[in-house]
Amino acid sequence: MYAIVKKKRGPGAEITTVETPKIRENEVLVKVKAASVCGTDIHIWEWNEWAQKRIKKIPLIFGHEFAGEVVEVGRGVTSVGVGDMVSAETHIADGTCYQCRTDRMHVCQHLEILGVDRNGVFAEYVSMPENNAWKNDPSLDPAIASLQEPLGNAIQTVLPKDHIEDIAGKNVAVLGCGPIGLMSIAVLKVLGASKIFATAGGLNKVRMELAKKMGADMVISAQEGVDIVKIIRDATDGNGVDVSLEMSGNPTAVRQAFEMLTPGGRVSLLGILDKPMEIDLNNAMIFKSATVYGIHGRRMFQTWFQMKGMLRNPDFRNKIAAIITHKIPFRDVAKGISLIQSKQAGKVVLQPKW
Amino acid sequence: MYAIVKKKRGPGAEITTVETPKIRENEVLVKVKAASVCGTDIHIWEWNEWAQKRIKKIPLIFGHEFAGEVVEVGRGVTSVGVGDMVSAETHIADGTCYQCRTDRMHVCQHLEILGVDRNGVFAEYVSMPENNAWKNDPSLDPAIASLQEPLGNAIQTVLPKDHIEDIAGKNVAVLGCGPIGLMSIAVLKVLGASKIFATAGGLNKVRMELAKKMGADMVISAQEGVDIVKIIRDATDGNGVDVSLEMSGNPTAVRQAFEMLTPGGRVSLLGILDKPMEIDLNNAMIFKSATVYGIHGRRMFQTWFQMKGMLRNPDFRNKIAAIITHKIPFRDVAKGISLIQSKQAGKVVLQPKW
Amino acid sequence: MYAIVKKKRGPGAEITTVETPKIRENEVLVKVKAASVCGTDIHIWEWNEWAQKRIKKIPLIFGHEFAGEVVEVGRGVTSVGVGDMVSAETHIADGTCYQCRTDRMHVCQHLEILGVDRNGVFAEYVSMPENNAWKNDPSLDPAIASLQEPLGNAIQTVLPKDHIEDIAGKNVAVLGCGPIGLMSIAVLKVLGASKIFATAGGLNKVRMELAKKMGADMVISAQEGVDIVKIIRDATDGNGVDVSLEMSGNPTAVRQAFEMLTPGGRVSLLGILDKPMEIDLNNAMIFKSATVYGIHGRRMFQTWFQMKGMLRNPDFRNKIAAIITHKIPFRDVAKGISLIQSKQAGKVVLQPKW
Amino acid sequence: MYAIVKKKRGPGAEITTVETPKIRENEVLVKVKAASVCGTDIHIWEWNEWAQKRIKKIPLIFGHEFAGEVVEVGRGVTSVGVGDMVSAETHIADGTCYQCRTDRMHVCQHLEILGVDRNGVFAEYVSMPENNAWKNDPSLDPAIASLQEPLGNAIQTVLPKDHIEDIAGKNVAVLGCGPIGLMSIAVLKVLGASKIFATAGGLNKVRMELAKKMGADMVISAQEGVDIVKIIRDATDGNGVDVSLEMSGNPTAVRQAFEMLTPGGRVSLLGILDKPMEIDLNNAMIFKSATVYGIHGRRMFQTWFQMKGMLRNPDFRNKIAAIITHKIPFRDVAKGISLIQSKQAGKVVLQPKW
Repeated sequence: MYAIVKKKRGPGAEITTVETPKIRENEVLVKVKAASVCGTDIHIWEWNEWAQKRIKKIPLIFGHEFAGEVVEVGRGVTSVGVGDMVSAETHIADGTCYQCRTDRMHVCQHLEILGVDRNGVFAEYVSMPENNAWKNDPSLDPAIASLQEPLGNAIQTVLPKDHIEDIAGKNVAVLGCGPIGLMSIAVLKVLGASKIFATAGGLNKVRMELAKKMGADMVISAQEGVDIVKIIRDATDGNGVDVSLEMSGNPTAVRQAFEMLTPGGRVSLLGILDKPMEIDLNNAMIFKSATVYGIHGRRMFQTWFQMKGMLRNPDFRNKIAAIITHKIPFRDVAKGISLIQSKQAGKVVLQPKW
Repeated sequence: MYAIVKKKRGPGAEITTVETPKIRENEVLVKVKAASVCGTDIHIWEWNEWAQKRIKKIPLIFGHEFAGEVVEVGRGVTSVGVGDMVSAETHIADGTCYQCRTDRMHVCQHLEILGVDRNGVFAEYVSMPENNAWKNDPSLDPAIASLQEPLGNAIQTVLPKDHIEDIAGKNVAVLGCGPIGLMSIAVLKVLGASKIFATAGGLNKVRMELAKKMGADMVISAQEGVDIVKIIRDATDGNGVDVSLEMSGNPTAVRQAFEMLTPGGRVSLLGILDKPMEIDLNNAMIFKSATVYGIHGRRMFQTWFQMKGMLRNPDFRNKIAAIITHKIPFRDVAKGISLIQSKQAGKVVLQPKW
Repeated sequence: MYAIVKKKRGPGAEITTVETPKIRENEVLVKVKAASVCGTDIHIWEWNEWAQKRIKKIPLIFGHEFAGEVVEVGRGVTSVGVGDMVSAETHIADGTCYQCRTDRMHVCQHLEILGVDRNGVFAEYVSMPENNAWKNDPSLDPAIASLQEPLGNAIQTVLPKDHIEDIAGKNVAVLGCGPIGLMSIAVLKVLGASKIFATAGGLNKVRMELAKKMGADMVISAQEGVDIVKIIRDATDGNGVDVSLEMSGNPTAVRQAFEMLTPGGRVSLLGILDKPMEIDLNNAMIFKSATVYGIHGRRMFQTWFQMKGMLRNPDFRNKIAAIITHKIPFRDVAKGISLIQSKQAGKVVLQPKW
Repeated sequence: MYAIVKKKRGPGAEITTVETPKIRENEVLVKVKAASVCGTDIHIWEWNEWAQKRIKKIPLIFGHEFAGEVVEVGRGVTSVGVGDMVSAETHIADGTCYQCRTDRMHVCQHLEILGVDRNGVFAEYVSMPENNAWKNDPSLDPAIASLQEPLGNAIQTVLPKDHIEDIAGKNVAVLGCGPIGLMSIAVLKVLGASKIFATAGGLNKVRMELAKKMGADMVISAQEGVDIVKIIRDATDGNGVDVSLEMSGNPTAVRQAFEMLTPGGRVSLLGILDKPMEIDLNNAMIFKSATVYGIHGRRMFQTWFQMKGMLRNPDFRNKIAAIITHKIPFRDVAKGISLIQSKQAGKVVLQPKW
């Protein structure tokens, strides 16, 4: 089969043919219908510092956000069948560690990630454990379905704990309008947030317009001289926001997320930072009695059921679809990578034309 | 001033003139702009068994759902001013009992209710403690604003605890489509529920159409021979609903609320029953590990802030407005009462024409 | 091997020899060191109405509460090894249904129970899936370790949801002092409850003394003429209890559990009733804004980790040990059954003497 | 009356006579029976940077932790009477801001603090609003009762949200053994924590011994060369602690609090830092999906009810009493201050001998 393979520990990757994967007793084989490109894929392509440290397996088929059709199932598989349309929960948990046994599989002590620790989805076929194959509604467009993995992160950022939400009727800020930030805005809108504020770096028109389309009430360009905190405080009767979602990984945005928060409010941190940063813990967290959630992965599988419910809403589905700014064949993967590097794309979806 | 006064312990009431209320140091005087009629007002008018037992103060100006303009404030009042548009949180709590001091003012041990224990809003003017005067957005239509007190009950039924919600992406049933049931559907829609099922007694077309307008995905007529539980189970992959809201006070509906529930799901009970009923606790609650919330009143003042946020949403505001099927002058109160008794009305709003 | 086998669909059981179980790839074989007798075992022995309906597999080795040593593991087993001391989480969940995938395995749609749906622990050896084998601290006395399964129910009753507790400094009533009720008292004590009230049926001295030993502040005999609700209300400044745990399955106790509750308080229902009962929902749940939890099983595996932590406390461990009033050889199982039927025993533990 | 008065904006204070306070309609006058010295009092005495910025009112009677007897009540006071023994919730909230109306009075937007913004308790008499006077059990020793204000902070650190606890059976670290850290250990013990680890700065024998007495399983001296994180990880099966409580305000301890945390665990930050510090947010919070609570003040009045319940437990009461290492007359306040400055004291309680 065709696949995009990282063959050596350096930049780039090759489109080549490899053997179609064999499946084990508890695995399924899936024909890829659509795959979307994640920031992680860019890191692997660019072979940046993170990738050099994190990637052990070479050669590696990378890519992990996808939708496809099950074409073969192992002998022990009972919950998925041939012909089912599926996406992947990309986190393969051990199921027996302390975290897995206390409903925190997403921070399993021995997590293996599809397209990072084992071959991924930038290929004609991919194998995965039955438990990681999430059955999609057969009528859901594979391009949209391929976005569920990051959409799950967006939901996790908005609703970090089971049965603990604080969005309905609340004022919320989303700092950073990359794809997951944009998805968060759409999710907030579905959950009945009152005013939604979004900030986007520089003068990124593509992202600012998408933020507006997702339902943000106010989209603010994060440039020097713009006092974002004051603007948001003024627009909330001086209270500040109830919830800030930090999606940028930018230290200035992290600081603003706390400054604009109402006392007793909540911050979710999803954006990954380049390096340690200085924080005034007293004013940021302590004196405000703030609650802070570090966000990584998605609760398995609550977030998937939440998505399933939300994606029944046509307005929400259309918004998620609008984040896909480019659909291109797999053979043009290099072009897709540079589109994202330019920050002029929302999501880029790869389609099975080799 | 004009007022609708219950003068004797029997059916009916009189429109008459009485002295305008004097306010105390911590009270405000409000000119009534719109008042809506509640089931409680019907009980007082009809002088049913409940009213005979509950009402101590006669003569009594009744009515409690309203919006109006502050025309005078006591010396000690700081948070509300003349000219402010307000509605009433009708529960006057003592502020010092065990419940009040642990964030459960709505079940205060010495609760006094506007229009039940002290003079209410079916009048030109009403006085109330500063703490119970909730400032409305000045641009909010007083007729809609008068509906916030029962809307708060709807929100409380949907979201019974602070920060504990379980609606986003979930399947929910609303059993009973009186005004608060209808409002719940609109609230569920704002909160991102997946499928919403509504049941309405008999063949009540007015209510069934309103339920549809509120956003119910399926409206089922509760008549003999209709297996509501099976219909709903079939429409939810056999799982049953995640949440049932019992809004009817009908024993059959109470039983169905539990039967249609997925194991580990949640039931809110708002509808008041005529008398004790038989329940199979094993199958209804225990074997299912169900969570059940008794609902009475509204959390003060979290529900009001949630409403404020939701009412910014024009679609939601229009739905709430659509529940008002009749606007009539105060002098036609008797007609308003019989409209509601006929069950052919949604909400009836009284306007200051005497 | 020796085993206690239900050979026909009628009362009693036989001690006999059967083949030692063979294990599958993901199973473990355990040598039984101690087994305790549960009410369910009594039902199966007596072959009551419930057993006649529920038990499909005959012949059946019953019994499910136990501790033992792993003597063999399947090829795929990684988390448990030969020589480990284990007890069984007796609920074998499918792992893929809606409930299992949303952290509610204890109400799995296809639950299979050890000693009910497959051969259990009243035998020399028992096989079970790796996932159901819980590793004990090797120094924990097997008799105490065999009580963990019902102790998990007690913890679930006290703490029905993850991270949601309301015990510290609260007044709590435990209605019913069978073994799980007694364990609950010990758990409440560990969690910092303020006043603990316990009620025991009739004049059951054994249970009343054990309740006292577990740490109850007041033990009340539930007999006619004793106004339990008034006694408890008087002992709580008139507020009533914050939490009631119904462990008896007695309709009078169910009613009392609600009557003695402070407004906004919580009731857990664990006791199974003989038949449907009449409840005044208005006063029991609605007007009080009560929260009610139906309790069945134990959250997997949070409750087991909680137990592990609590059992490190010597005082708690001694209390649990004190509930074991009889240790007898397996060959005297009939005597053990009648001890429990007489209600003059706490827990009866069977030991591997055949 | 006698009082300790800060007369000018500089170090020290004077014992002098001033007029006994007059009370308003909603206030009470209390005769001081015992007052304990807080770090804040030291700041005011030393007139450090914080005090110079924060203190507006001079002359000021400072001190806020106390117990006393009500000797006079205002006309409007209903919940407290002459002869009642009381302590003070020192945070005087406005009752009407966004925070107050959503059960977060402890972060009120217009908080006034006893002994900081208005005259405090280092005097023969003190006046305060009725709402801030918490009725003590008359049999509670005033010295212990005077410690409830900081004990409430300890409880808030352990249990930051209503009904959200995660202590029972969990492993917990307390970093910093000042008085509130010590109290936290006692609280953790009452709540059924499994292993409790405590760290104390340098070789502070007084604090380390008190930590042991409070119930810590392991007390580690925080000195160079001691790898606290490794020690704790090794003692928790490699999992790390479930909960860390940072009580020291030391940047190294803050970092350790996150490093020793199990993925998905929780950190409470109470200790105030001297200045902003550098944090590796990725590893500290994000990749670990940590939950972080900033702690300031005490939930009003849930923490007080929790204390009331816990203080019924004689073992807990004795532990709290043991933290009081010195009882001295008010006239020796200077000596009390230097005892605390030396870090060789637990709590110093001042008694009404002038």
